Formats: sequence, C-alpha cells, structure tokens
Amino acid sequence: MTKMFGYKIHHRDGKARQGTVQTARGEIRTPAFMPVGTAATVKAMMPDSVAATGADILLGNTYHLMLRPGADRMERLGGLHKFMNWSGPILTDSGGFQVMSLTGLCKLTEDGVKFKSHIDGSEHFLSPETSMDIQRKLGSDIVMCFDECTPFPATEKESIESMQRSMRWAQRSKDAFGDRPAHALFGIQQGSIFRDQRAESAEKLIDVDFDGYAIGGLAVGEGQAAMFDVLDYAPGQLPDDKPRYLMGVGKPDDIVGAVQRGVDMFDCVLPSRSGRNGQALTRMGAVNIKNARHADDPRPLDPDCTCPACSNYSRAYLHHVFKANEIISSMLMTWHNLHYYQELMSGLRGAIKIGQLDAFVKDFHAVREQGDLERL
Amino acid sequence: MTKMFGYKIHHRDGKARQGTVQTARGEIRTPAFMPVGTAATVKAMMPDSVAATGADILLGNTYHLMLRPGADRMERLGGLHKFMNWSGPILTDSGGFQVMSLTGLCKLTEDGVKFKSHIDGSEHFLSPETSMDIQRKLGSDIVMCFDECTPFPATEKESIESMQRSMRWAQRSKDAFGDRPAHALFGIQQGSIFRDQRAESAEKLIDVDFDGYAIGGLAVGEGQAAMFDVLDYAPGQLPDDKPRYLMGVGKPDDIVGAVQRGVDMFDCVLPSRSGRNGQALTRMGAVNIKNARHADDPRPLDPDCTCPACSNYSRAYLHHVFKANEIISSMLMTWHNLHYYQELMSGLRGAIKIGQLDAFVKDFHAVREQGDLERL
Repeated sequence: MTKMFGYKIHHRDGKARQGTVQTARGEIRTPAFMPVGTAATVKAMMPDSVAATGADILLGNTYHLMLRPGADRMERLGGLHKFMNWSGPILTDSGGFQVMSLTGLCKLTEDGVKFKSHIDGSEHFLSPETSMDIQRKLGSDIVMCFDECTPFPATEKESIESMQRSMRWAQRSKDAFGDRPAHALFGIQQGSIFRDQRAESAEKLIDVDFDGYAIGGLAVGEGQAAMFDVLDYAPGQLPDDKPRYLMGVGKPDDIVGAVQRGVDMFDCVLPSRSGRNGQALTRMGAVNIKNARHADDPRPLDPDCTCPACSNYSRAYLHHVFKANEIISSMLMTWHNLHYYQELMSGLRGAIKIGQLDAFVKDFHAVREQGDLERL
Repeated sequence: MTKMFGYKIHHRDGKARQGTVQTARGEIRTPAFMPVGTAATVKAMMPDSVAATGADILLGNTYHLMLRPGADRMERLGGLHKFMNWSGPILTDSGGFQVMSLTGLCKLTEDGVKFKSHIDGSEHFLSPETSMDIQRKLGSDIVMCFDECTPFPATEKESIESMQRSMRWAQRSKDAFGDRPAHALFGIQQGSIFRDQRAESAEKLIDVDFDGYAIGGLAVGEGQAAMFDVLDYAPGQLPDDKPRYLMGVGKPDDIVGAVQRGVDMFDCVLPSRSGRNGQALTRMGAVNIKNARHADDPRPLDPDCTCPACSNYSRAYLHHVFKANEIISSMLMTWHNLHYYQELMSGLRGAIKIGQLDAFVKDFHAVREQGDLERL
C-alpha cells in the first residue's frame, strides 16, 4: 500500500520552507503550530474553536493518555480522534519527556524506563516497543520515536551516551512501528549543543529512515541564543525533503527564528497555559490582564485582532472575569493566544510564499520593540 | 413615551399560559427559563452558546456585580449587556437575597441592609433606593424590587412583619425606579406559606402597580409539596395579564408543576452548577458522570439530545475530562444541562399552544419514572 504521508515544499525563502504535510486525515500547512491537547482536550477550548483559529493538527501526550483514560480503553473506544472529537491529524509524543519531567521517580535502563504514575503512584514501563504500541492504540497520525530528551546542561560524555541510546531506541521504535501506510513515524535528533553529536544523531536517524525528523533536546533551559546556535546547523543535517519539527517551542520570537533556520513544525503549551494564567500574547508583546490598570479599560486586548476575545470584549471584562476566577477567562484568553499563534504562522507562510520572510521578520521585531499597544 | 414592555398571552391551557414578554431588547417566549449569569458570565459558557440553547433572557446578580466590577464602573463601561456581550434582555435581582444568604454579617433596618462584602470585607448598604440605582447603572431590562426573602420556616408574625416591610420597600422601589419607559420593574410577593399573607402582599403590590410580579420566598427549604400548595393559589392572586416569575426555581419537575399552576418565568443555578459538578440532567433523570461505570461507555449521555456534549462525545469522554479536572468538562456538561432546560421549556410552550399540557406532563413523569436511559 502506498504511503499516505508525504511532504511537499511549495516555496522556499532562504532556509525557510512553506509546504504541505499530507496525512490520511488531512493536510498540514507549514510552518505549522500544533496546539497541545494533553489529556484529550486543548484546555478550555472546544475542538471546533481550535480549528477556527487555523490549527490543522493537534498534539496529544502519550504519558498522560496512557495513565488516564488508558491506551487499551482508548483503543476500545475507537481512538483519540473520535474520543476527543477532532477529525484532523494528531501527533503524539512518545511519553519519554513527560516520564522524566513529571514523575521524578523513574529508572532508566537500555530496555526502557520504569516509572510511577503522578496520578495514583501505580508502576508503569515505557520502552520503544510499548510507546509504539500505545501510540498505535491512540490512533496517532504522526508517531514519535521513544527517546530520552537529554537534560541541559549535559557534559559531552553524558550527552553522547544519552544520544546514542536514543538512536538505538530509534531503530527499535522503527522496528516496532512496522508497516503502517496511513501513519507516519518521526525520528528525534539529540546531541545537546554539540554539533558533531547532532551530526552523528542525524546520520543514524537517516540510516533508519523516518517520515519526518524532530529536533529534540532544545528549549530545555539553554536559552534562545544557544538554541539558535544549534538551529543554525541542525536542520541542515536533516533531510531536506522531510518535515522538520522543533519539539516544545516556543515563544513567538523563538518560532520566528526557527522558521528562518528551516524548521517546519512546532508545539508548545505556552499560548494555552499563559492564557489560563491571565497573560495575553500579542504582536506587541504580553499583556497581563490581571494588572489593575485594565479594570476600567473599555478597549480590546488588541484592536487589530479578530478573535472572539478581542472582537467582543473589553480589557475591563477580561480583567473582571480573571479576578472573579470565571471559566470564561480561560476560554477567552486561550482562544486569543491560539488565534495569535495561528495568525503568526499564517503570516510566516504568506511571507515565505512571496519571498519576503526577512521583511516580515524585521517588521515582527520592530512592532515588538516599538511596543505600546496602549503600553500593554 | 409609550412603555416598551408588555406581555401578550397567546394560548392558555388550564392555568398555564404561553405568551411573549416584549422588551426593548427583544422578546421572551414564556414559559421561560433564564440561565443565571451571576458575575457577568453564565459560567463555562460563551454567550452565543447560551443563546444557541434557546435562552431569550439571562439573569444577573446585583449583589455580585455591585461588589465586582462595581456599578459605577459598569455604567462607565456602557452597561452589563455590552460588558458581557449579551444583546438580549437581562433581568437583575435586587441583591437582597444574596446579601442575606452570602454575607452572614448584615444588619437589617427599615431603611435597608448594611453588610460586608464576602470578597474583601468592605462595608456596603443596600436599600430600595440604592438597589434601583445600581440596577439602573447595570442597564437591566427587568429590574426587581428590593425585598427581604422571608426565611423558612417563619412564624406567622415573623412572616407578616417581613412581608409588610417588603411591601413598603416595594413602594419605595417603585418611587426610586421612576419613569423609565424602556425598562420594567417587577414587584415580589412574599408571605411565606400563609395564604392570607400572600393575598395581602399581592393586593399591596397591585396597588403600587408593577410591570410584572414575582413570587418570592419559595424554594427556600419548604419542599416541593409545600411550594405547590402555595402555587395552587398564589399566581391567581396576581394580575392575569402580567408576567409571573417564580424566583430561584428550580428542578425540572418543579418547573413543570409551576407552569401548570400559572407561572411564566423561572431562574435557577441548578443546571449550570450541577453541570460543573458532573451531574447531567436528562429527561429520564440525573446522570452522575463521575460514576466509574461510565469510564468505558461509548454511548452519549442521551442519544436523543442534540446538544454538543451528546452529539459529539461519549460518556467515557465526559467521565474522563471530569476526572482529569479539565475545563471542557464544565463547558460540555453545562451546555447539556442548559440545552435540556430550554428543550423542556420549548416542550411546555408547544404543549400549551395545542392544549395538551396535561398529556405532556403525564409523559414527562412517565419517562422519568420508567427511567433507565441505560440505567442512568
């Protein structure tokens, strides 16, 4: 059966690419931002609202879903798409990152990782094989290899050992994934901030042969400058004709810089988490709606934004419902932030199409530096 | 200027009425259920979703809004409708009930009520005059008289003193309300469970002359049988040609029984509060979605319900997001419950139109007694 997954690059501008990832469940316009739907919901959003912001694909978290509601249950219920009422593509992570960041107590061996649930303390085991099995049961369209996200900072020795084990796990992931023409498997490059290790990792992944390639181990505390240093070369170490996905990134200016450096896909909890915490992300910077000076402000968050929060509500209202701890605060602020992120991605795609990415990025930074938006 | 408020009764069936309340902001089909938007939001719902359930009018709480965001601020911001993005009619209560039920520490005199905010302990004063002023600043379409909701149980002496003071306050409310052709003022009948006091209260209110009449002091612990005993005569003591509003009611079978007894309007936090607590109200009874037996259930809450929760999600999903404490749980469960309430009101209106209310009510109870809905 022909592979129902592919990547067509339509336009290039410098290292940046504008294309379409084709999946059995629909197309993903790149550069793409994937909202995070950790526990089978993009928090505080209805799926049709997420789609209305312009999202083509969601990310689901294997770690959370395997614990609750559980992979076997999800399979019995017909998979994650049906469960959460999202008919478009879904990418799932491998669970490895959350195991190591959320459980504290875990034991890593060549075989895999033993850990205890942060919900009820029950013991679980994740490995390349079990992660592939769980992601298959979830029905994920884009499956991620099971790997270790090398902690930062790491010595060269620590990093290379971690990376090489992840590369052995990448082969095991591929073997366990098997032949699934309607689904894609992405490898994950590691190697911390060491260029030769990143090169070795890329070569090993290319040997295994994946449908797409993620850049892992970044946005873990190294800072934007160090991240951009790696992104100056890492995307070029990966195949040109496959989608490149920078995991867990990021702030708007992180995304813009990464797109310039040849990255196609992103995910981050920032827009949804910030929204719930009362922080609106706008083209001019962040607005903290809990600030008392918004209490009497009849103006919208951003007069140029067309999201429901900006179209229908004053800052005074958004301030009020945040202070009153009303659910609509999370609903409106999340909607605004996801809308802004998708507008940014749309702007990046449009700029690449017409070969004006540099001008777009210059304007992006000028607007932020000028700031204001009624002084945020 | 002609009064822009009126009530047209289109159909009668026994004591029940089906009509249209006309306001400057649109029509209210009766019998009507008003979702409660305490703090300028129907919790967990976007206003367009509330309208989509079939609600013609919302209720706002004067007590909450006067404390936060404050009446003067609301007036500066253009009123409650604009603030919360609801263009239809809004009824506001007088604040009296919440003052006495939420603040604990309050001092009631002939003049009014002194109380401390439950938010920050600040001192406030509510009286007929201040309540009318606050409700005017909010921009309420249907303003409620300031009264005391007589506690239950009350001795005849306690009740008559409370009722007669509320009737003096009703006159003061009317005087303070003044001449506002685009807005309506409703009187509130008190008198606890004493028929002669209810009659005296009604006569005094009719002397003052209001645009509509509420039945107050019920659903405060007396039980459905005692409430229905009062409703067997109280609506008939009020003018036939004005809307009758039973405050704070209630459960679906309370509403059905009250409509049979001649009540036109209702409000209650039950559907929204129950929804947030994981209880779905259906034609066959309540479903507690947190119950473990829903965890693997692929069926909707109610296969005959057309709300988004029932159309797009399994009980397994609703159980999962409730257990995972996800915001979408409150969103979907509230939507279902408000949808069910509005469907019930629509059914009552339809039955009255065709003179089949008794058959409708018989079927309503038969379906609930038969129960099942897959054993709830």
